Amino acid sequence: MHATRTALLAAAAILLATAPAHARRKPVVLPAPPNEGGLIDNVNGYTLDQNGRVIRFTGMLIDKAGRVSKLYQSGDTREKWLDFKLDAKGRTLLPGLIDAHGHVMELGFRATELDLANTSSLADAQGKLRDYARDHTTPTWIRGGGWNQERWGLGRFPTASDIDGVVRDRPVALARVDGHAMLANSAALAAAGINAKTRDPAGGRIERDAKGNPTGVLVDAAQALLERAIPQPLPRERDVAFGSAQDQLLAFGIVATADMGTTPDDWNTYRRAGDAGRLRVRLISYAGGIEPMLSIAGTGPTPWLYDTHLKMVGVKLYDDGALGSRGAWLKRPYADAANQRGLPFLDDTKLRNLMSRAAMDGFQVAIHAIGDAANEQALDAIEEVALTYKGDRRWRIEHAQIVDPVDLKRFGQNGIIASMQPVHQTSDRLMAEARLGEARLAGAYAWKSMLDAGAKLAFGSDYPVESPDPFAGIAAAITREDPSGQPPGGWHPEQKVDLPTAIAGFTTGAAYASFTEGILGSLQPGHLADFILVDTDPFTATPTQIRATKVQETWVGGKRAFLRK
Amino acid sequence: MHATRTALLAAAAILLATAPAHARRKPVVLPAPPNEGGLIDNVNGYTLDQNGRVIRFTGMLIDKAGRVSKLYQSGDTREKWLDFKLDAKGRTLLPGLIDAHGHVMELGFRATELDLANTSSLADAQGKLRDYARDHTTPTWIRGGGWNQERWGLGRFPTASDIDGVVRDRPVALARVDGHAMLANSAALAAAGINAKTRDPAGGRIERDAKGNPTGVLVDAAQALLERAIPQPLPRERDVAFGSAQDQLLAFGIVATADMGTTPDDWNTYRRAGDAGRLRVRLISYAGGIEPMLSIAGTGPTPWLYDTHLKMVGVKLYDDGALGSRGAWLKRPYADAANQRGLPFLDDTKLRNLMSRAAMDGFQVAIHAIGDAANEQALDAIEEVALTYKGDRRWRIEHAQIVDPVDLKRFGQNGIIASMQPVHQTSDRLMAEARLGEARLAGAYAWKSMLDAGAKLAFGSDYPVESPDPFAGIAAAITREDPSGQPPGGWHPEQKVDLPTAIAGFTTGAAYASFTEGILGSLQPGHLADFILVDTDPFTATPTQIRATKVQETWVGGKRAFLRK
Repeated sequence: MHATRTALLAAAAILLATAPAHARRKPVVLPAPPNEGGLIDNVNGYTLDQNGRVIRFTGMLIDKAGRVSKLYQSGDTREKWLDFKLDAKGRTLLPGLIDAHGHVMELGFRATELDLANTSSLADAQGKLRDYARDHTTPTWIRGGGWNQERWGLGRFPTASDIDGVVRDRPVALARVDGHAMLANSAALAAAGINAKTRDPAGGRIERDAKGNPTGVLVDAAQALLERAIPQPLPRERDVAFGSAQDQLLAFGIVATADMGTTPDDWNTYRRAGDAGRLRVRLISYAGGIEPMLSIAGTGPTPWLYDTHLKMVGVKLYDDGALGSRGAWLKRPYADAANQRGLPFLDDTKLRNLMSRAAMDGFQVAIHAIGDAANEQALDAIEEVALTYKGDRRWRIEHAQIVDPVDLKRFGQNGIIASMQPVHQTSDRLMAEARLGEARLAGAYAWKSMLDAGAKLAFGSDYPVESPDPFAGIAAAITREDPSGQPPGGWHPEQKVDLPTAIAGFTTGAAYASFTEGILGSLQPGHLADFILVDTDPFTATPTQIRATKVQETWVGGKRAFLRK
Repeated sequence: MHATRTALLAAAAILLATAPAHARRKPVVLPAPPNEGGLIDNVNGYTLDQNGRVIRFTGMLIDKAGRVSKLYQSGDTREKWLDFKLDAKGRTLLPGLIDAHGHVMELGFRATELDLANTSSLADAQGKLRDYARDHTTPTWIRGGGWNQERWGLGRFPTASDIDGVVRDRPVALARVDGHAMLANSAALAAAGINAKTRDPAGGRIERDAKGNPTGVLVDAAQALLERAIPQPLPRERDVAFGSAQDQLLAFGIVATADMGTTPDDWNTYRRAGDAGRLRVRLISYAGGIEPMLSIAGTGPTPWLYDTHLKMVGVKLYDDGALGSRGAWLKRPYADAANQRGLPFLDDTKLRNLMSRAAMDGFQVAIHAIGDAANEQALDAIEEVALTYKGDRRWRIEHAQIVDPVDLKRFGQNGIIASMQPVHQTSDRLMAEARLGEARLAGAYAWKSMLDAGAKLAFGSDYPVESPDPFAGIAAAITREDPSGQPPGGWHPEQKVDLPTAIAGFTTGAAYASFTEGILGSLQPGHLADFILVDTDPFTATPTQIRATKVQETWVGGKRAFLRK
């Protein structure tokens, strides 16, 4: 500050000395003083450094560029020349949270579609579908998602005939909670021309009855048969969906998120928001394949756009499907389906080719791998490709959900990032036991073992598969109990981590996972002033209280982006 | 200026009065004075206002935002507080030129491909192909363009066998000069799977011999059969091509250009250039169809991006093909092909639907129409659609090349913009006579009649079909003679316009055609300081001298963007 004022005083002296007399006699108007930014004071502040050390503070100075310039302890003298000051009245301040794995546009679209995420039975879902169809008469297709036949206790996939009785006159397409399967009614199957003669596409499966007729559920790549018959959303629908997603994320205290699988239309939507000055959350984009990556970003990752609000850093590749739909690729057959091992999406050569195509131009590679066979394939590929593409590559494995214990240590090699979603563990627990059997659970959702093996851990939610709420993730990470406290003491409790480690997963770890640890994830001076004010101090709260934490304010780059009313 | 200095002096007085004593004793450093921008002085300056009036000046003051703030006459006192000053030493200064119809990426790609534009015979072209193949061993496909069988005096289309003897081992694809036909060698036909069994696609024609075998030329939509077999350019090749196009345009004094038919890959290339700060020419984009328009711009034209360097304003629609390949849609048969009338690309309903889809969201519509039937269809459609979409829409007809004289007056209605390319007239003259016969030439390339009918005239080059050089266009517009002076006195000389009108076509008229007349096309105060310094004063030069004009410097937004070495 003093340098600036001194320079101005010197300039003033010159001007006064050289100014004509009449200028000196002009009536003076009090000028605004040369301010230094904003002060957030009287906070119960926490942040982590990159080593996981907890740093406490009671005030934070933010410079004009929206970066942290100083952290104050209680006795420190505060800056007086300010543009603004917020007295937080003792509330808890945490670094803004980062979701290392989400799907931004899907979150937005989900908000306008039929939400079956909290349905407890098929009958419950049928009732919600009936209500939605009555209240939403305009869309040609009824879209929705969130169903989970495991949660319904149905013991089988639902079928078209289960919903034909509710909606017969319009096509209905409902995504499974994990996005790896779709339920269609008969009108939708007819509109898409899917019938007994339709063959299973590579990497996909049409569920069929004994006669070979489609039953209504389309698994993995077979979903595309239906998707291509569904009218594309209008640009204004995309813009509305993005606005909804952004509002939801900021309300959960998420200041930055990886967008895992950005399409060209997604990207254009983000750019429209940026061009119009509507971008408030920070988007770290992984293209949904090599083609959009090359078409959009071209010869390498984009620069940070819109004042550090949008950047395409790399590509998302899919190695297999998901566990619920038995699309996850396992080394040995499913415990509850002796003739199935799931589906590999890419052969070894294709995977290496795609990784090389990205790495040769400096793009980061994030590989979706759920099953232990997929994780092994991804690890093999990384080990081989890293011999050619050296340096700080931060190869990511997304989910790393079911890992053969013999493979765990390999995550610590090559600096691999395990990008995991703690809430998946609590949601999937019973299903995982059924699919895998007890013997294979040692490497399942094993974030503590990952850490011990030297992997870099990043946490996310995989929203909209799960709620984007990071406090649900933090609570799951430290308890391995679900929201109702099941199982008491936690499922495979040896995989719990402590609170700073859980918070690091959603801050410094998630930042490191996208090469942004120099500006995001921590509130040390020089980092962007992305922070949240919350109603609960997680360091003194019980896990139940942590799970119930409400974000009161979310600030991005020194500006308030969300205020709870 | 005085307001700024006064305020600073007042602030200085306050600070000195309130500063502690030690500050007053500090050693003083001379501060930079508050400058006002740049001065381009000692020029022979011309600009036009929107009414076509010529304004002369000898100096121009540019503000810090890159806009014209003042034009000086020789006696006027010049500003003294300047950031920079250029003494132009009496050179002629003109407003930066605007091409109302070009193809930016094609111009760039053409520069790396085989250029047959100046070949005088088939043998000449064969020689150039041989040399190119020898010098360029890497590309899988040899691409090129610019051939014109009329210019070669061949009396027929060239064939695959004409070039198989030169290149047999690699596919070759060579575009006709107008981009409406493609010549392939046998390797290319084989790679694309085009053979006697291949049917003509809608809107296209495969040239065939008596046995129905493809001869090698693919007209209009049939070109897509070949295009889809050609590997897509890499992003770095696109970036290089764009850089080349930008350099070429600036060297010709073009500061802004309409890009007629922007694809998503084109747009992403422009955005990469903008994101990296490499955008110097101003791009006014018309999407190559409704889908890219909606995907990119969404709910309406984009804002000006990158400090007024990129904006998508509307959509380009194609109503027919071109005259050379007999794709232009005529009311009566071709004079030299009694059973052909060309191809309509869109039926009436489809054209209206596309226009409405654009207009409902405020996008501008530019319709390619070459033949008199296509122009009539476009006029009919505009008259009807304008009843619903009112206000200042500036419907554009691109080329408006062959217009039935009874339709000319309709251009003056509905404020239609005739976006014409003067050089096409001199290039096409003999071909047009052959295709149309003398009786139909009254409404051919009839820019003076357009003006008299009250149409708004905008000029361009249709580069890379023609050179982007606007001085060639200005010379053609005022003489209707080709570069060798043929025919003396001009072809249909009643269609000549005067010099200010010709310059207006490339400045104020082209700006009006894209809704940018408030900032582009003129050097009146408030407009962007886009100007050129040239070696010839067109207002005192002969047409031959005008045609030979060289641009010495091109300035965009008050910054030098090109300097001839």
